[in-house]
Amino acid sequence: MKIRKAVITAAGDFHSRLPLQTLVDRNGEIRTALRLMLDEIVESGIEEVAIVVRPGQQEPYITAAGPHASRLVFFEQANPRGYGDAILRAADFVAGESFLHLVSDHLYLSRSDRPCARQLIEAATRYECAVSAIQPTRENEIVFFGTVGGSPMAQAEHVYEVSTVIEKPTPTVAEQKLIVAGQRAGYYLCMFGMHVLTPAVMSLLQQNLARLPEGTNLDLSSSLNQLAQTERYLALVIQGSRYNISYKYGLLLAQLAFSLSGVDRDLILTELVNLLATK
Amino acid sequence: MKIRKAVITAAGDFHSRLPLQTLVDRNGEIRTALRLMLDEIVESGIEEVAIVVRPGQQEPYITAAGPHASRLVFFEQANPRGYGDAILRAADFVAGESFLHLVSDHLYLSRSDRPCARQLIEAATRYECAVSAIQPTRENEIVFFGTVGGSPMAQAEHVYEVSTVIEKPTPTVAEQKLIVAGQRAGYYLCMFGMHVLTPAVMSLLQQNLARLPEGTNLDLSSSLNQLAQTERYLALVIQGSRYNISYKYGLLLAQLAFSLSGVDRDLILTELVNLLATK
Repeated sequence: MKIRKAVITAAGDFHSRLPLQTLVDRNGEIRTALRLMLDEIVESGIEEVAIVVRPGQQEPYITAAGPHASRLVFFEQANPRGYGDAILRAADFVAGESFLHLVSDHLYLSRSDRPCARQLIEAATRYECAVSAIQPTRENEIVFFGTVGGSPMAQAEHVYEVSTVIEKPTPTVAEQKLIVAGQRAGYYLCMFGMHVLTPAVMSLLQQNLARLPEGTNLDLSSSLNQLAQTERYLALVIQGSRYNISYKYGLLLAQLAFSLSGVDRDLILTELVNLLATK
Repeated sequence: MKIRKAVITAAGDFHSRLPLQTLVDRNGEIRTALRLMLDEIVESGIEEVAIVVRPGQQEPYITAAGPHASRLVFFEQANPRGYGDAILRAADFVAGESFLHLVSDHLYLSRSDRPCARQLIEAATRYECAVSAIQPTRENEIVFFGTVGGSPMAQAEHVYEVSTVIEKPTPTVAEQKLIVAGQRAGYYLCMFGMHVLTPAVMSLLQQNLARLPEGTNLDLSSSLNQLAQTERYLALVIQGSRYNISYKYGLLLAQLAFSLSGVDRDLILTELVNLLATK
């Protein structure tokens, strides 16, 4: 299994402008959020990238992509029917291959020497199956995320065999269905916004879209839950953090995290202390 | 003297995109940088705003202005000849009135109950003359700013009679010409990026532009220095801070300053401690 293609969904209400915001990366360079994402995945071996956008939004993305612009292909999501539907718009692009999928409103900061996307792609390549990136998450936050249940894989660190995926579970549902051996009490394994998906996922999405009642939206989690019943499907705890930049203070926190782990750490710490002192 | 009009210059290389960046304000609302500036000056009594932009850049500004869009008038700076030239493009707009002038890459955070622009406008109205907003600045930073020399005004706190304006002085020049009585050792009075300018400034700019050698740029500081020889010209130390968002980490520091002095201070402090702890 070789992962050469990526699909980024960017057609949501607030998604459309987010990847165009600029940040300063760990090396002190000014980059758009899109450029940072593309740096991350190109470094991880991705050659071609499909971006699913609202009609007519290609141009700012091409500008924001910088040197990666030539790798981009766009698909428009007119008449949107949800997140799962957005992924399906790139079905012809992935054409039966397994692919990396990212949401456009997350930025990733690795705590290892390999980018988060590379950690995920290496696991998928090694185990030859779909793998979702996950992060142990405190109970009070699981209502915001897709959450997986399953069991630790033998002889493999940070890898889980997924048996269940539930979108934004309540703590009660999580306690009944999603407790995973070896986790700290009150912690669950939540989606990190990054997956390697197999052709089977595209088929499941397609079938589910066909069955979907008029006026409702297609999610991804239900298809992933079905996938877990159909073929081997793993989850990998990523050595790194994700920053959801669609959250109000997401860009601030992402910027702080980048700066505090980069070349300008001392400068930013000094400014922080100054700011706190003048309040 | 009533100040009803403002001129914002936004035609520089990096200026053009900056006011379109978004931040979260002190009340926790997501705002473009332009919207924050317009909120500040409209609250301070400004009714009409000229924005000097590069040709063809009006549209994103109109969107970013939100509810203030109807107050905006645009002037294009084709064949740009510097900062002073940008201000001159709005000469017909101000039409002989005194006006507030701001650069588009600064954000302001007041430490009093009046916005920074209001503090400045009140001083200009009271003393019936041009007033520049200033901030005591450490010697090592004066090479980035226009710097004023002069003397404290009798019976007025934070107000100075300006005798000299020098753009980006060296520390040696500053020591010879710009020391102001009553300042802490090693501190000078630097421009804050906000002025109330009189019709005389427009005339001086016009004369200086006419005399300007081909291929050189017109600055503002030289005209302000001439103004100090011509009519009463004051400087006011603003109770507040400015954040230069064209500086690499300017947006980050502005956002931190807003958040740490606003409704979400506790939340941001908590996240900061978390971030520092996980590094």
